[in-house]
Order: sequence, then C-alpha cells, then structure tokens
Amino acid sequence: MKKPRLMTPGPSPVPADVLLEIAKPLIHHRSPEAVAIVVEVVAGLKYVFQTRNEILILASSGTGSMEAAVVNTVPAGSKAIVLDAGWFSSRWGVLCKTFGVEPIVIPTEWGQPVDPERVAAALREHPDTEAVFGTLSETSTGTGHPVEAIGRVVASSSAIFVVDGISGVGAMECRTDDWGVDVLCVGSQKALMMPPGLAFLAVSPKAWAKIDAFDSPSYYFNLKLARKSMKDFATPFTPAHTLIAGLKVALDQVQAEGIEAVWERHRRMSLACQAGVLALGLELFSSRPAEGMTVFRVPDGLKDSAIRAGLSDRFGITTIGGQDRLKGQIIRVGHMGYMDEIDVVAGLAGLEMVLNDLGYPVEPGSAVAAAQRVLMSL
Amino acid sequence: MKKPRLMTPGPSPVPADVLLEIAKPLIHHRSPEAVAIVVEVVAGLKYVFQTRNEILILASSGTGSMEAAVVNTVPAGSKAIVLDAGWFSSRWGVLCKTFGVEPIVIPTEWGQPVDPERVAAALREHPDTEAVFGTLSETSTGTGHPVEAIGRVVASSSAIFVVDGISGVGAMECRTDDWGVDVLCVGSQKALMMPPGLAFLAVSPKAWAKIDAFDSPSYYFNLKLARKSMKDFATPFTPAHTLIAGLKVALDQVQAEGIEAVWERHRRMSLACQAGVLALGLELFSSRPAEGMTVFRVPDGLKDSAIRAGLSDRFGITTIGGQDRLKGQIIRVGHMGYMDEIDVVAGLAGLEMVLNDLGYPVEPGSAVAAAQRVLMSL
Repeated sequence: MKKPRLMTPGPSPVPADVLLEIAKPLIHHRSPEAVAIVVEVVAGLKYVFQTRNEILILASSGTGSMEAAVVNTVPAGSKAIVLDAGWFSSRWGVLCKTFGVEPIVIPTEWGQPVDPERVAAALREHPDTEAVFGTLSETSTGTGHPVEAIGRVVASSSAIFVVDGISGVGAMECRTDDWGVDVLCVGSQKALMMPPGLAFLAVSPKAWAKIDAFDSPSYYFNLKLARKSMKDFATPFTPAHTLIAGLKVALDQVQAEGIEAVWERHRRMSLACQAGVLALGLELFSSRPAEGMTVFRVPDGLKDSAIRAGLSDRFGITTIGGQDRLKGQIIRVGHMGYMDEIDVVAGLAGLEMVLNDLGYPVEPGSAVAAAQRVLMSL
Repeated sequence: MKKPRLMTPGPSPVPADVLLEIAKPLIHHRSPEAVAIVVEVVAGLKYVFQTRNEILILASSGTGSMEAAVVNTVPAGSKAIVLDAGWFSSRWGVLCKTFGVEPIVIPTEWGQPVDPERVAAALREHPDTEAVFGTLSETSTGTGHPVEAIGRVVASSSAIFVVDGISGVGAMECRTDDWGVDVLCVGSQKALMMPPGLAFLAVSPKAWAKIDAFDSPSYYFNLKLARKSMKDFATPFTPAHTLIAGLKVALDQVQAEGIEAVWERHRRMSLACQAGVLALGLELFSSRPAEGMTVFRVPDGLKDSAIRAGLSDRFGITTIGGQDRLKGQIIRVGHMGYMDEIDVVAGLAGLEMVLNDLGYPVEPGSAVAAAQRVLMSL
C-alpha cells in the first residue's frame, strides 16, 4: 500500500465531502438551485477574503484572474509597478507587457520579502502609476510578502493595489479591506481545499473606477461583463458549476472552523515544519516564509530529485522542486488547506528516513521532536 | 420522488463513472500519472474530432476557446467573415470587435442554415479576409449549419475556417480534417458527457501559419504558449486536471461505442424527437435542425415558462427557453451526450401530459408513437 499524501503548494488535498459534492448529478447552471449555491459561495468567499468588495467567479486557473486584473485595470500605454520577487510575481510584468502597459519593475531577491519603503519611493518617482501588482505568498520561493504594509503605502496614492493571493489566501492572514487590497486574485486549488478550475477576484470601488474608465481589450475576462452577471449571481458564460457546488461545501468547512482559526492552524503548521527542517540542519530558502508551504535548500551532495523520489516511492508524499533559476536547488513542501499538524509531523518523519537512506546524517526523530516542541509551545 | 432528467443543450447528463473519476483524490498535475492521462485524452479528442491537428486544452468555458481562436488568428486591423445566425454565432462578431478586427457579417435568419454560396461571394468580395468564423450547431436556435460545404468554399481561399463546435461536436457528424475546419472550438459540457470547465481547440497547419505571423495580445489564451506546453502534454498554467481525468473516462466510452455510432445515435434521437414534436402539432423552429437538440415554437395561447415548469415540477425534466430575441418564443430540448432513444421517448411522454394539463389538445401517446415509428424505421 502506498497511501497518497499530496504535500505540494497546490494542488492540495481535497476533503472527500467536497469531492463527492462535485460528483453529484448535474443541474442546469441557470436553475434557481444553482443560483442559490452561488449566493452562498459569494458570501463564503467574502468571509474568507475578509472583504465587502464585489466577488467575481471565473472558470479558469488562477492565472486567468491575474490576466483579468491586468487587462481590466490598466489601459495600454499606462504605467504599473510590478513587485517582482519570484517566478509568479514576474508574471505580472509579462502580463503588463502583453497588454501594452509599461511595467516599473521593483526587483527583490528571490526568497526575500518586498520592502514597502521601495514601493513608496517608486510611487513618488512615478506618481502616474495606475496600479501596483504584488503577491501575498510567492509560490516559487515560499515567501510571504508584507501586504498590509505595502497596502498602507499604496492606499495613500492614486494607484490601486492588486494582489496575487493564489497560494496565500486561506493559508495566511489576508484582510483584504483593512489592508487596502483593491483587487485580490485567488485560485481554487490552494488553501481553499478545492480542485483547480476556478478563480476569484474581489474588486474594490477604487478599482472599479479604474475599470470603468476604459474599454478593456478582453471578452472572456471582461470584468464589466462579469460584474453585470454577478448582480444576478451568475457568470457571463457557462460557469464550472460542479466545482462551484464543491466550493460551497469547502467554504462551509472554513466558516465552521473560523478564518482566524484557519490562519492560526497554518501558522502552527508553518512554524512546526520550519523547526523540523532546521533541526535536520537544512536551510530555509526564504527569510520570511509563507505559511502555506515550507521551502528548503537541497543540501550539498544530494539531488532534489532523489529526495523527492524517495518521499514519493516510500511514503506516497508528493512534493515539488524549484522552477526556473531554482531548478534543482530547493524542495517545496505544501501544508495548506485540508492539512493539519500531524500531517506535517508525519511528513517530517518521512523526510528524516529518506534523507537517512540517501546517506545524509539524521538523528531519528529530531525533526519530529523539534516540530512537536513548537506545537506544544504555541 | 422527482428524478432529475437534464434535457438542456448543455450541460447534459454525466455518466456516474465519469463523476466518480472526477471525485478521486487529487494528484499533482505535473506528475507522470497526470501526463499519462493527458496523452490519452489528446488521442481520444483527436478521434472524436476526427483530426490529426494539434489539440490544446484550456481551463475555461467554451467561450474561452472562441476568444482564443479570434485573438490568436486574426490581428487587429484585419478582416474576418462572421456567419451570424444566432445568439452564439453573433458572439464571433463581438469578439472580433473586442480585438480590433473588422467583422464582415453575413447575417442569416435565426433558425435557417448559412448558405455556402454567400460565403463564397463574401470571400470573392473580400479576398483579404483572414478567417471565416462559423458554427456547427447554433445552440440558441437548434440549427445545424452545412460545415462540410462551407469548409470546401473556405479551403480554396487564403482564409482559415474557424468553427464553434461547442454544442455540435460529438452530437453530429464533424470530420474536422476532411471538411477543412482549421480551428475547431469545443466545450466539455455538451456531447462529451462532462461537466463544464474545459475547452478544447484543434488547430491546423494553415491556422498555425496565421498564429505564428503576429504577436497575439493575450496571455492566458495564447496558443503559442499552449502549443509549447502541449508538446510535453502539459498546459502553460494549472490545468483543471480532475476534470481532465473524468474526460478520459468519457472519451473511453465514446471510443468504445465508436464515433460514427455516436453520431447515428444522436441522429436517431433527433429525428425521433422532431417527429414527436410535429405529431403534437407543434412547429420546429429550425429548418435544418441540429442533432443534439430539438427546438420548437411555444404554441399560441401557452407560456413557455408554464410548459417548462410543468415538465420540471411533474417529471424533473429540465429544458431551456429562448435567449435574446427568442425569449418566450421557443423551448429547447437537449438530447446530447449521455442520452439514448428511450430518454427522448420518455421526454415526449412527459411533454404530452404537461401540454394536456395546460389545456392544449393532446392525443395521449401520439408523440411517443410518432417517435417510435421513426426509431423502428431507421
């Protein structure tokens, strides 16, 4: 028997209740039953995102919501600040260029958090900036960025703050309205305990003013069309409504636990996993770890592929390696969504045994104990 | 007990085997297991579409594949012929305008098929046309268009032929390569026996030449990016891979039945349903009915909503009314995908009883008998 343990930063495990809801016989997406589900899902997403802003639901991956955020808020020829600190945040720059927007890139070393002071300076230097594109949790490096502090800086400008919350929302604190996030982009397959296929946006009045100011060169991702449909709790095109039905069940579970308890659970998993990794003499990649994942450097003399294959072959634990310039250099372990502290402890136990197999010196139980000490102290 | 009977032209019923496959625990979308599924799905789609062209898989509704077809094949400032014959085919014109393409609209009365001669004349008049955008099955009117004949006309020009096959493919004959369809757009939730959330494109070498000739102002729907990823049987962004796993099971079923037998089953359902409707003295809306659905005019003195509510309340039969200018005037009955002849006969029996309830004169069994006579004669 090889029990599957999906420990990647997306997709994450999905509760059986959610999967079985998705497997129910289809209803028509314009039926009153389908609309009633969307009503509940919108309320649930507002709670999870901590927002009163309008929610839009897309049938796409999270990248679709990022494209929608760019193509609707910044007209061609305008300027936008891009907080580039990893593979996924660099995508904001690619999207800007695709749609004729000039990206003012603030590069941050991969693994380091964005410095809000540099955002303030860039806004002073470029007062005609239409939007600042940032990230809550950079999935390529496992770094959590100081969205609250950046939000404060952007709020005092005429620019809007657009945040990729795809692997962050639900795994770490995100108070969309209090923190001044004007457009929040979220995907279904991370901390929301869902399969991929849905994306969400929460859009503030300040962002709607930008959106209403020009005709977006988009149709499928046109947020004006989406907003019109969402007034009737519908989507302009056929929604992925079996997934939306599953999301209702997932959101019910988040609401029952309470969003602050969910954030706290992820904080505990994150701190425990970090402690375990450090106890093995491994090095954390990020100086400000995101809370839905732990990323460590591959130790000298070992191959990332050997560690990952060992975890997978012996214990069914799926992790993921590095992307782009981090290929071969890091291993990313997800602990987001439908995961608890014992899952993390079990993962660390597996990591100990696999490293030992590969000749890396391990004191059995050392990572587990370090994690337990953290959990017992919190 | 009210047993659900989904008889809309999308979504259509999904076999339990497919739903249960979708409900299986998640794997990572870049794992060898996930790639192996995509390999099989691509082969299955090629078979169903009858094509050797490259297949691209999108996480979107069918409209996403239409947007991808427009934004990648026709540059801003160029000309395209739009075969506008209903609500959905008019979307081609909207998409062209959104992306700065001049649509040469050939309007056809709703419910009538497009005349290939008019396409030939338009191509002669506009030899600089980059693409002809048409439809296999117009879902708003239930009309099947002569794609084979139009394809012959377009093939002799420098334009490519782009076909919305969303509600047609799998329900009626579509020989993509033999008929000269350069870009075929398909959605998952129609005759492919799947929930919504996936869209597909089959792209010919003639179309790739157009695509390669300019930089498309798109990212999520950029077909050059998608093509690059699909060489490794992957997608540029996170795919909706639980749906893709379900699709494999659905395609296995289509392949086991054989595509020609599937088309024949739909033809029998279509002819039987038409005969039943006519036997009740109702009028078919289309002069060239599509084979995945039957559309009839609401008889004088009755309301479409009363008929549809009667079907739904008494027998759990979900149908759909008209859109836009056809609101209140027609009822659309789907018989595509996971449906057989007896489902159609049962639907007609329900329609008889509901019409009778509403005071419309009905000879009990007359529609059923007419349908049976057709089925026994074929």
